[in-house]
Amino acid sequence: MQNFRLTIEYDGTNFNGWQTQAQNCRTVQGEIQKALKIIFKKNITLIGSGRTDSGVHALGQTAHLKIKTAMPTDEILRALNANLPDDISIINVEEMPLKFHAQYGIKTKTYRYTILNRPSRSPQQRNFCLFYPYKLNLKVMKEEAKVLVGKHNFKSFQSTDPARPERGEDSVRTIKRLDIKKKDGRITIDIEADGFLYKMVRSIVGTLIEVGRGKLAKGSMKKILSAKDRSCASPTAPAKGLCLWETKY
Amino acid sequence: MQNFRLTIEYDGTNFNGWQTQAQNCRTVQGEIQKALKIIFKKNITLIGSGRTDSGVHALGQTAHLKIKTAMPTDEILRALNANLPDDISIINVEEMPLKFHAQYGIKTKTYRYTILNRPSRSPQQRNFCLFYPYKLNLKVMKEEAKVLVGKHNFKSFQSTDPARPERGEDSVRTIKRLDIKKKDGRITIDIEADGFLYKMVRSIVGTLIEVGRGKLAKGSMKKILSAKDRSCASPTAPAKGLCLWETKY
Repeated sequence: MQNFRLTIEYDGTNFNGWQTQAQNCRTVQGEIQKALKIIFKKNITLIGSGRTDSGVHALGQTAHLKIKTAMPTDEILRALNANLPDDISIINVEEMPLKFHAQYGIKTKTYRYTILNRPSRSPQQRNFCLFYPYKLNLKVMKEEAKVLVGKHNFKSFQSTDPARPERGEDSVRTIKRLDIKKKDGRITIDIEADGFLYKMVRSIVGTLIEVGRGKLAKGSMKKILSAKDRSCASPTAPAKGLCLWETKY
Repeated sequence: MQNFRLTIEYDGTNFNGWQTQAQNCRTVQGEIQKALKIIFKKNITLIGSGRTDSGVHALGQTAHLKIKTAMPTDEILRALNANLPDDISIINVEEMPLKFHAQYGIKTKTYRYTILNRPSRSPQQRNFCLFYPYKLNLKVMKEEAKVLVGKHNFKSFQSTDPARPERGEDSVRTIKRLDIKKKDGRITIDIEADGFLYKMVRSIVGTLIEVGRGKLAKGSMKKILSAKDRSCASPTAPAKGLCLWETKY
């Protein structure tokens, strides 16, 4: 048996997220498993680094699969891409030790949220950013975001996961890095953490937008974080601005 | 009467090019003229800096229109965007002297052609680049491209325009700048000129690809340029990699 790690890019616009579902939904995992079945003539389970929600994109999603094959990795890559729809692409295939696990082996994940902050929409970027034409105070956003970095209970930024409502996991995560930058009218918010709660990035971004807009006073982020109560934070930002950027093992 | 210059971004994927046609085609000019009619309750002709072909994109197309209105420019911008489909956006509206003409006033135009030169497709960029997975020798491409810079007869890179087959214009143009760069697996070819012949950029790019691939020997570009014969150059590169980047007046 061999163990292969796939690195995957996708345009999440027309997917019901990563994970195969009982219903007849179009998912990234489902489409790749279909392609694997065509190539290897059997059902193969693909284990992702984690789920992404409906409409969320990825440049660096990772997953592993176990199979015995004589096919070299570059040929697996070409065969997969030849059998995948044009909104999914396998960027890399690498053989790993048998013990490698795409989900449990994760050290950190990085998500990028993109806000187009200029007076006009962008047709060319329309599926990959939130268009927000109002003035945002970047300096205040950066200042308020600082309290999020480190090991905290992020319950205030955790939505109830409909797929796992009673999972009862703790809400403590460690944000290693939170970078906010603006270039050519695009604000990017990069968050690297050892793990993310359900809709955590989008809840943080939604709150940062209200901070930048002046709807939340200085010091709000600290209070919201301490409250450990989702109703204290702002609405989640839309899925289309979010992209799973990188996974590190 | 006032004269307004619009700067326009579009995703050309679902357009039959810029120019309104007799047939019932979806064009960028046609969609903007529809929006102008909704706002100003009359037919207004929009004069573009020039046509772009079916499937070609723009970040900096410009056009002018004449009308008498009390509406300030930022309100015209908002009203237009509110009445345009999401694959067109007006980036800027500026009042110009009455004599300003979007086509005749042009000093230079810049087009960018993007080639995704890596082993895998990119779902997120799929409508905005040519995917070309084979090795390209960038050094040779840059070297051969040098002969194109300057004032030349570009007949070898001119296709017959079906809309104006007997126009009989001369084929002399001046390329001011031709930059080839590669970053993160993307090759960009920027060409700035005082004007472009029909499918000129795409013919040049198609030929540069064959140069980079080693299908054309060293010195080929010079011979092709001198021949003044379209059949000497390579096939035109696909429309979707091309974007009208900037116009200068």
